[in-house]
Amino acid sequence: MTGTLIIGGGGMVGRKLAESLAADGLDGDLTLFDVVFPPDSGRTENRITGDLTNPEVTNALAAARPDLIYYLAAIVSGEAETDFDKGWQTNMLAFWRFLEALRAEHMASGGTYRPRLVFTSSIAVFGGPYPDKIHDLFLSAPQTSYGAQKACSELMLTDFSRKGFVDGISIRLPTICVRPGKPNKAASGFFSGIIREPLNGKEAILPVSTSVRHWHASPRAAVGFLRHSASLDLDRLEGRRALSLPGVSCTVEEQIEALRDVAGNDVVNLIRHETDEAISKIVAMWPRDFDPARALDLGYRAEGNFREIIEIYIKDDLPRAS
Amino acid sequence: MTGTLIIGGGGMVGRKLAESLAADGLDGDLTLFDVVFPPDSGRTENRITGDLTNPEVTNALAAARPDLIYYLAAIVSGEAETDFDKGWQTNMLAFWRFLEALRAEHMASGGTYRPRLVFTSSIAVFGGPYPDKIHDLFLSAPQTSYGAQKACSELMLTDFSRKGFVDGISIRLPTICVRPGKPNKAASGFFSGIIREPLNGKEAILPVSTSVRHWHASPRAAVGFLRHSASLDLDRLEGRRALSLPGVSCTVEEQIEALRDVAGNDVVNLIRHETDEAISKIVAMWPRDFDPARALDLGYRAEGNFREIIEIYIKDDLPRAS
Repeated sequence: MTGTLIIGGGGMVGRKLAESLAADGLDGDLTLFDVVFPPDSGRTENRITGDLTNPEVTNALAAARPDLIYYLAAIVSGEAETDFDKGWQTNMLAFWRFLEALRAEHMASGGTYRPRLVFTSSIAVFGGPYPDKIHDLFLSAPQTSYGAQKACSELMLTDFSRKGFVDGISIRLPTICVRPGKPNKAASGFFSGIIREPLNGKEAILPVSTSVRHWHASPRAAVGFLRHSASLDLDRLEGRRALSLPGVSCTVEEQIEALRDVAGNDVVNLIRHETDEAISKIVAMWPRDFDPARALDLGYRAEGNFREIIEIYIKDDLPRAS
Repeated sequence: MTGTLIIGGGGMVGRKLAESLAADGLDGDLTLFDVVFPPDSGRTENRITGDLTNPEVTNALAAARPDLIYYLAAIVSGEAETDFDKGWQTNMLAFWRFLEALRAEHMASGGTYRPRLVFTSSIAVFGGPYPDKIHDLFLSAPQTSYGAQKACSELMLTDFSRKGFVDGISIRLPTICVRPGKPNKAASGFFSGIIREPLNGKEAILPVSTSVRHWHASPRAAVGFLRHSASLDLDRLEGRRALSLPGVSCTVEEQIEALRDVAGNDVVNLIRHETDEAISKIVAMWPRDFDPARALDLGYRAEGNFREIIEIYIKDDLPRAS
């Protein structure tokens, strides 16, 4: 009997991960934790709600001794930047306390309990100026609180793993695109919006220049990254347990031309260009391209081009939206 | 009226820094904080003892609103490795709480209080495999708890500084050599011991191969690094507020030959080679050489060769020892 826990199981990627695990016939219990879940979709996993910054909550999650833990919960980048206290308390200190709670279980078990812990980090751990492609030896010099909190968490997880308390890996997800659902206020939201909204017959605003280049992977690829991380022999990481993942580097212009190829001019004409200086300034600081040699060598795979990313949205999410 | 606070003022570098500041006629009060001070040397600075892991202590230190803070306190590498809890509590969480206390003072002052904070980090933030020279864009992938704690602290200080709560810089000191005083149990202790003990007519054990290469600077250089960091315009760091400092890269053989040049064969003959596999294994993981281009550009200076490092020991510390 084994147990799997998804912390942040109410979010978009968490729900897709849970569906993927259930579809493949999960070996053992699946528990989802989040601060809140969207209206019930009829699934039957165990669901727990709570506040991760409450030590009783992190202690209780650890006390169940799940063998496999996906840690996806976070205050998003924009909110961590405007609410400094909430960002550090949730993204760094709650993760620290959770690691401490797992270490206590490890000790109490006489060293037999040592869960696999897959932590979703972010390309926000990097800050410019960048090389043309960010390689695996490039420094983490984040320019946001969110990036600093993720980078600290990576360091903690690596050290707790080196000591044998947990068996962890931090995976730095590309910007996930195309996100299904309603537009959100994330600065990166338009990367999904300019594809999703037109495909649903709605107008979308493009707030940046079409020359902007960024780094993407689909939600399906994200689920693949997470599941691959659960079964990988982490000794192969040789102590460097934070990994930049594969993705698709493309410009907004290339995104739009891929949409034209897939869906035609009438759909593309629903994109309205209306420059937002604030968003343009934030996006200008973001990574544009990577050379994720280690992750490729370890078997991680993303899409080959942006057209595939659009096609995955159409296949996986567009039917539900309509 | 300005105030300077040295946290870790009872240590070797802290005491030399205090002497240097006093010798130059410090503008304002000088306060030293440490868990314990060595027997009184007759100096007249304010001295405070306490436990940094006690939040009341960090709050009280911040409440005095010093304009300039040197943060040198740490559980050393070896102890942080054997006492996991103490290392993380002191080196990471106490520093976090101190930053939070300074942020509270910044807020309470209406934003006018924003101290210069000089944090001593370490080359232990790096982990192998290394390039021939560690350049300024190389990743931090520490292989010790001490290194992970220092790397987390760098990230926090950078983010608190980016937000304007403090004006901080993290300086990664080379291994300080020649340390005066008695031999200690640090794995790096022999680098000082094989120079200091023979110059004082005593036998010294060399526990590693003479081909071992490492990265050094004198205590005098360390004081120079700290004082330079206090007056530097940190906007020049362009958001990358953790800096690898200059030093001397040399092999143990080169150290010994420099000692022979300075003090002769009879002194060198007091070094006895007795390999210690445990120490050799630890030392094999350490950085060997750096290309600290940014720090040099910002005006940081170390010695030009190991002979100078020996001569500084003879001038600054040997008279007291004899």
